[in-house]
Amino acid sequence: METSNSKTLSSGMTEEEIYAQACEVLPGGTSRNTVFRKPHPNYAASASGCYITDIYGVSRIDFANNMASLIHGHAHPAIVEAVIDQVKNGTAYTSATLAEVRLAQLLCDRVPSFDKIRFVNSGTEAVMAMIKAARAYTGKPKIAKAEGAYHGSYDFVEVSQLSNPANWGDINSPENVPLVSGTPRGVLNDVVVFPFNDLERTLAILDRYADEIACIIIDPVPHRVGLIRANNEYIAALHNWSRKNGSLLVFDEVISFRTNYQGAQENYQVKPDITAMGKIIGGGFPVGAIAGSSEIMKLLDPREPNLRFPLSGTFSANPVSMTAGRVAMELFDREAVQNLNALTQLAINQIEQAIKIADVPVTLTGSGSMFKIHLKEKPPVSYREAYESKEFNTLTNLLINHLYNQNIILTNNCSCMFSTALGQKEADMLADALLSGFRLIKPELEKLHK
Amino acid sequence: METSNSKTLSSGMTEEEIYAQACEVLPGGTSRNTVFRKPHPNYAASASGCYITDIYGVSRIDFANNMASLIHGHAHPAIVEAVIDQVKNGTAYTSATLAEVRLAQLLCDRVPSFDKIRFVNSGTEAVMAMIKAARAYTGKPKIAKAEGAYHGSYDFVEVSQLSNPANWGDINSPENVPLVSGTPRGVLNDVVVFPFNDLERTLAILDRYADEIACIIIDPVPHRVGLIRANNEYIAALHNWSRKNGSLLVFDEVISFRTNYQGAQENYQVKPDITAMGKIIGGGFPVGAIAGSSEIMKLLDPREPNLRFPLSGTFSANPVSMTAGRVAMELFDREAVQNLNALTQLAINQIEQAIKIADVPVTLTGSGSMFKIHLKEKPPVSYREAYESKEFNTLTNLLINHLYNQNIILTNNCSCMFSTALGQKEADMLADALLSGFRLIKPELEKLHK
Repeated sequence: METSNSKTLSSGMTEEEIYAQACEVLPGGTSRNTVFRKPHPNYAASASGCYITDIYGVSRIDFANNMASLIHGHAHPAIVEAVIDQVKNGTAYTSATLAEVRLAQLLCDRVPSFDKIRFVNSGTEAVMAMIKAARAYTGKPKIAKAEGAYHGSYDFVEVSQLSNPANWGDINSPENVPLVSGTPRGVLNDVVVFPFNDLERTLAILDRYADEIACIIIDPVPHRVGLIRANNEYIAALHNWSRKNGSLLVFDEVISFRTNYQGAQENYQVKPDITAMGKIIGGGFPVGAIAGSSEIMKLLDPREPNLRFPLSGTFSANPVSMTAGRVAMELFDREAVQNLNALTQLAINQIEQAIKIADVPVTLTGSGSMFKIHLKEKPPVSYREAYESKEFNTLTNLLINHLYNQNIILTNNCSCMFSTALGQKEADMLADALLSGFRLIKPELEKLHK
Repeated sequence: METSNSKTLSSGMTEEEIYAQACEVLPGGTSRNTVFRKPHPNYAASASGCYITDIYGVSRIDFANNMASLIHGHAHPAIVEAVIDQVKNGTAYTSATLAEVRLAQLLCDRVPSFDKIRFVNSGTEAVMAMIKAARAYTGKPKIAKAEGAYHGSYDFVEVSQLSNPANWGDINSPENVPLVSGTPRGVLNDVVVFPFNDLERTLAILDRYADEIACIIIDPVPHRVGLIRANNEYIAALHNWSRKNGSLLVFDEVISFRTNYQGAQENYQVKPDITAMGKIIGGGFPVGAIAGSSEIMKLLDPREPNLRFPLSGTFSANPVSMTAGRVAMELFDREAVQNLNALTQLAINQIEQAIKIADVPVTLTGSGSMFKIHLKEKPPVSYREAYESKEFNTLTNLLINHLYNQNIILTNNCSCMFSTALGQKEADMLADALLSGFRLIKPELEKLHK
C-alpha cells in the first residue's frame, strides 16, 4: 500500500494545526460553509445521543443536529445496529433491494399526498427532480419561489436566496438576484420571485406570468426566511391559483418534514402536488426523495413507452440510507413527534422567560421541533422583516459563540433543531446559557435598537 | 412504535410479489432506471467480494459493481471495519472532521491537477458544481458538451444525452435534444453540442460560440458514447482552444477516474482546469467532488469578502463517505490499479478469442478496468457510430439476459466494470458465458448485419 509523503495527518494535532493542513487541500479549509467558523471550524471526534465530542474530548449539547437532519441525535442504537448489519452485506448493488420498498411503503402509508415516491441522494437533487417533474407535467418553463427561501443548490432555486436591501428592489416586484456569480440570464429569466406570506402581492406577481409557471415552490416553514410558518390562507390561495392556471403547487419539506407526523403539510387543508424531502428520512445518511400523486409520478416510470422524465443515480435508494431512514422514521412515530414538539415548546417557553428576565428585544419563531432566535422586538412575518443587517449579525454570532463556549451548539443562523435524544435537562441548560448570552449582548443590542 | 396496517412487506416473498408491492409505492416499481429489468428488477439480499446473492440465495458474479462505483467489489473487510467504527461514533455532524481532510490530502497528493478539492454528495452534484464554478470563473453562460455523453442529471448536461437518428440532425451542427420533457428553452440555448472525438467539426462548432463558452466538458472515456477514449490530439486541441477563448476545459471523471492511478487525465499531456469525481472515491457510499487549481477553487472559499460561489450541503463530506472513500483509495494504489487493468486486459483478450471462435461481428472498446461489448464488426469511434438501433438493442438485452441466467451480471448497456475482488476464475467464466451467448445471438445478429 502506497502512503503519501507529504501532508499526511498525524494524530495529536490541535484544531489550528488540522485547519492549517485543511487549508492546503480544501478551499477555505472547509467542505461546508455552514460548519465554517472563524478562526477555524470545530473538529468532531465522535458523537452519541445529544452530545458531540471534539478532538480535545470536550462534549457539547447538539441543538443543530447536522442542520436539522438527525431527528434522534447521534448514533441511535437501533439505527447503528441496522446499519452495521447492512454494511456487512454490502452498501450498493446494481440491483433493487427490499430496503427501498420498505421505506417507500412507510412514507406512502404516512402521508396522504404521497401515492408514490422516488429516492435520490440529497435535498438538492430532490428539489431539482421536483422542478423537472413539474416542467415535464405542465410543459411550462418557469418556477415561482419565495424571496429568501433556501431550496438547495440547483441554480434556479438559488435565485434571490440571499437578496439584501441593496439589491432586492421593490417589494411589489422583487428583483431576481443571482446567488452564484455567472448565473446565466436564461436561468434568471425562468424564475419568478414573490414575497413570502404576502398574499396580495404574491398573487399580483404570479398573475403577470400566469401562462408560464410550471410550479410554485413553497417551504412551508422556510428556514432562512426566518422559520415563519406559511399562513393557511396563503397556502389555500396559492393552491387555488395553481388550479386555475395549470400550475403545480409543490412543497420543499426537506427541513420542515420533521415538524409534524405527516410533515408541515399536515397543517393545511390543501395538499401539495409534489413534495421534496431529505434530511431526517435518511436516518443520518445522504438521502433525498420526491413524492406525489400516481398521475404525476408516472412521469418517472421506465415502463412508459414515452418516458418523459428518465432519472437514475448511482447511490439513489442505496440500502444503507434506506435502512437507516426506515428505522429512524419508525422510531419517529406520532407519539415521538408529539413528545419532541412538546419538549421544544417547553424550551421555547423557558427561553421566552429568559428574554423577559433579561429584558431584551429578542423573539422566537418556529414550528414543531425547530425555532429561530431573532434579535428583534416583534416576530418577523416576512423575509425582509427577518433580514438581519451586518451589525445585528455580529451580535448573533457573539451569542452563538457564547453558547458554544458554554458547550451548546446552535446552527450558524441561531436556530435550534431539536432531536429526540434531548431532554428537560438540556432544555434547561439551553435556557440558562441563553439568559447569560442575552445579558452579554444586551448593551450593544439596545444601542442598535435605538 | 406505530406499525403500518397496509402494504407491510413480509418475508418469504417472491421477486414478483415484492415487485407488485414496489409498484404500489414507487413509479414503475423502481428507484433507478439503470437497475430496472423486465419483467421486474432482481432483488439483492447481500453481497461479498465479487458476488451478489439474491433473495432466493442465488449468487452471481458482479461485473457491474453498482455502475462502476465499487472498485473493490462488495463489503471489503477493511472498508467495513473502518465504516463500522465511524457509524458507532456518529455519521454526520454540524462540525468538520479529520476524515474529510485525509481524503482531500490523499486525492490532492495523487493527481497533479488537484490543488484543492470540494466534496458534494453525488456525481450529479459534482458536475453541477463544476459548471457553476466555470461560469463564475469565466463570467460566460454556455457549456459545450459531447453528443451522447452522460454527465448526470443536471439539466444542462442532459442535453443530447440520448439523441437518436430521428432527432440528432446534421453532424456539422448537432441538434440540442432535450432529455426530459419540458426542459426550458433557456437551458437548451446555453448548451453547445459537438461530435465527440471529431476534432475538425468540434472546433468549427466551438468557434461559432467563441465568446460565450464557460467550459468544454469532457468525459475522457464516455460510457454512453461507447467507452471510447478521447484522442490525445483531440484533448490537446480542446485545451488549446479553451486557452485562446477564455474558457475552461473540465473533465467529468466520475466514471473514468478508475482507469488510471491519476484518473483518465493521466493519459494526456494537458490537464483539465476542474475535474468532477464520484463513484469509487466514496468507497461504496454516496459521494461527489470537484478539484482544480487553487485559483479556481478559491471561488468557493467562505473567507473571501466577495464569495462568488457559496455552496453547502447537509451530507457533503460526511465522515462515513470520507472514511470509506479514503480506505478504498488507499487500497487502490498504483500496484492495485495496474493489476486490475491487467486482469481486465486479459479478460478482453479472452473475449476477443471467444468472438473469433464464435465468428460473430462483435467488438470491444474501453479503457483501464472498463470495457463495452458492441454488436458491431469494427470498434465505433463516435457516438453516432456506437449508437445501437432498436433491433440491435433487443439482441444486446438477449445477451445480457443469457449472462444473467449463467449468474453473471453486466451493466444494462453491456459493459463490464471490473473490481479488484475479481480474479482469473471469474474472467474465465465471463469469457465462457459470452462465447455461448455469442453463439446464441449469432443467427439473428448475422441477419441484422446483412
